[in-house]
Amino acid sequence: MAAARLGIRVHIFEPQASSPAGDVAHRVFIAPYNDKEKLEAFARSVDVITYEFENIPTEALDILENIRPVFPGRKALATSQDRILEKRFLESIGLKVAPFAKVASDAQLREALTSIGTPAILKTRRFGYDGKGQVKITAVEQASAAFAALKGAPAVLEGFVDFSCEISIIAARNAKGEIACFDPGENIHQNGILRKTTVPASISHSLQTDAVLLAARVLNALDYVGVMGVELFATQDGLVVNEIAPRVHNSGHWTQNACLIDQFEQHIRAIAGWPLGDSQRHSDAVMVNLIGGDIGALEQYQNCALHLYGKAEVKPGRKMGHVNLISPKSA
Amino acid sequence: MAAARLGIRVHIFEPQASSPAGDVAHRVFIAPYNDKEKLEAFARSVDVITYEFENIPTEALDILENIRPVFPGRKALATSQDRILEKRFLESIGLKVAPFAKVASDAQLREALTSIGTPAILKTRRFGYDGKGQVKITAVEQASAAFAALKGAPAVLEGFVDFSCEISIIAARNAKGEIACFDPGENIHQNGILRKTTVPASISHSLQTDAVLLAARVLNALDYVGVMGVELFATQDGLVVNEIAPRVHNSGHWTQNACLIDQFEQHIRAIAGWPLGDSQRHSDAVMVNLIGGDIGALEQYQNCALHLYGKAEVKPGRKMGHVNLISPKSA
Repeated sequence: MAAARLGIRVHIFEPQASSPAGDVAHRVFIAPYNDKEKLEAFARSVDVITYEFENIPTEALDILENIRPVFPGRKALATSQDRILEKRFLESIGLKVAPFAKVASDAQLREALTSIGTPAILKTRRFGYDGKGQVKITAVEQASAAFAALKGAPAVLEGFVDFSCEISIIAARNAKGEIACFDPGENIHQNGILRKTTVPASISHSLQTDAVLLAARVLNALDYVGVMGVELFATQDGLVVNEIAPRVHNSGHWTQNACLIDQFEQHIRAIAGWPLGDSQRHSDAVMVNLIGGDIGALEQYQNCALHLYGKAEVKPGRKMGHVNLISPKSA
Repeated sequence: MAAARLGIRVHIFEPQASSPAGDVAHRVFIAPYNDKEKLEAFARSVDVITYEFENIPTEALDILENIRPVFPGRKALATSQDRILEKRFLESIGLKVAPFAKVASDAQLREALTSIGTPAILKTRRFGYDGKGQVKITAVEQASAAFAALKGAPAVLEGFVDFSCEISIIAARNAKGEIACFDPGENIHQNGILRKTTVPASISHSLQTDAVLLAARVLNALDYVGVMGVELFATQDGLVVNEIAPRVHNSGHWTQNACLIDQFEQHIRAIAGWPLGDSQRHSDAVMVNLIGGDIGALEQYQNCALHLYGKAEVKPGRKMGHVNLISPKSA
């Protein structure tokens, strides 16, 4: 929709029929990610390709990239698809991450628990989202059960970070190297799923600036084009990076109603080679996700902006929409 | 797009292929307005029907209305399609309009010019927009040429109104009778085409309130469902109605970036039977239309929100898009 607003036509490639994105697109290609012919036809039909889902098979991207530019680029995607590569990359550019260890076996997990301590979280290296593919471990005795729960998937053990709050920063970079960051938001998660983002975050101005500089460092190091979400822990020793997402981010949805240019338009501007827009917020904002059955109780959101995704089926834990509440801008 | 944001699917019926609306719709029916079968299939495929163009043939609406509700209703449409019916209706509910006279012949025009005086404007009763179907007359001698210019179309002669400014008010009403009005905007026209809308308008608070009450009176009298644009002249003797438009209105496009709920969403909420949203503005706004070649000079709009319509061809006088500039809210 952000592209259409700029007069740009969008074609969607999507394995499932009846996708919400397909409902607002000029053309839809429905085919599995291994349909080489359809992927090629799709790529030839457009000028530039982007994605809103980072677990697209490498082989599909190889085919697309041979025909048209794909933004954000492969380096950013490969880095963010694998929790261990991601953490090593972040450390390599001087950023702090939670203590972590690679886990490929039961024995390795026990060893990692001894060095990192408990509580800790065992996560699959790939394909995790919204708390899926994660097990919390509070005692070494839970190691075998936890490892079994991930069904042999390559994993990483992460130590807990003692944080005052979780924040995220949404930043955009275009091919000329211009960068624009939105103000950091403060996030509340429930059951591993983002529940609420509040802007401004309750952190000092200097930490807000640190977050902006940190995001810019990540984008530059990856020669990134597009919008990225960077999740951070605010601690007594400064910012610790939780994870990066090479796409528009749920914690940036508040920008739709509190900024003149939102994260979606910023992403389109970046990948289309346009100048980035102004990232200032005109209002304070609270974004609340509508999860599962929340969608059935909209009466309580009378003075909010509603964003409903048109997903066919309500499922517990599924993000069905979000609401934005705004108020006059504070500091 | 406003409907999609609320999770509502949109089907478009449009005689021309490649319509901008079709690019953001779930389904598109391309057929002439006299294709009964396609009109019926379209009507059966949806829950409720609306329009963004008031010159749809009556016969087409008869077919649609037999199958599904059409909002705004026929009374509002018939009234606003004919300048004379519209003025008589407005007078019947106690509102002021410019002096006018029906013109069906050269002789009638001369008579009207004598009673109304010059300067005056001769307008076709139907199908006029953006200054099309209008001739300004500054002396009685121009009568024959002016009448000939309209090619025999039924017409109305309107006297000039001595106004301090042109304003418009965008108002919504749902089937329960709830009404929500946006703040009045001040309009600048060039060559009969809206160039710029500024909010707030430079009129007194009491006149702003008058405009809201006037719009509510019009909506109630028509038992209106949807969004309406009401164009007004602010004069020393109060407000004079220029015209009403039974649809979202160009002079309400500023709401897209200065209100939490914009005129498009308000319209969808009204016709879908939802509660109307909050119509307050969070910011002051200036909307500037991009007309014809303006679309080629976007660099000057760096800190504005761009809205480009994706029309296939640039033509002089054609509205290609608009920009919104916002600033902190004043009084």
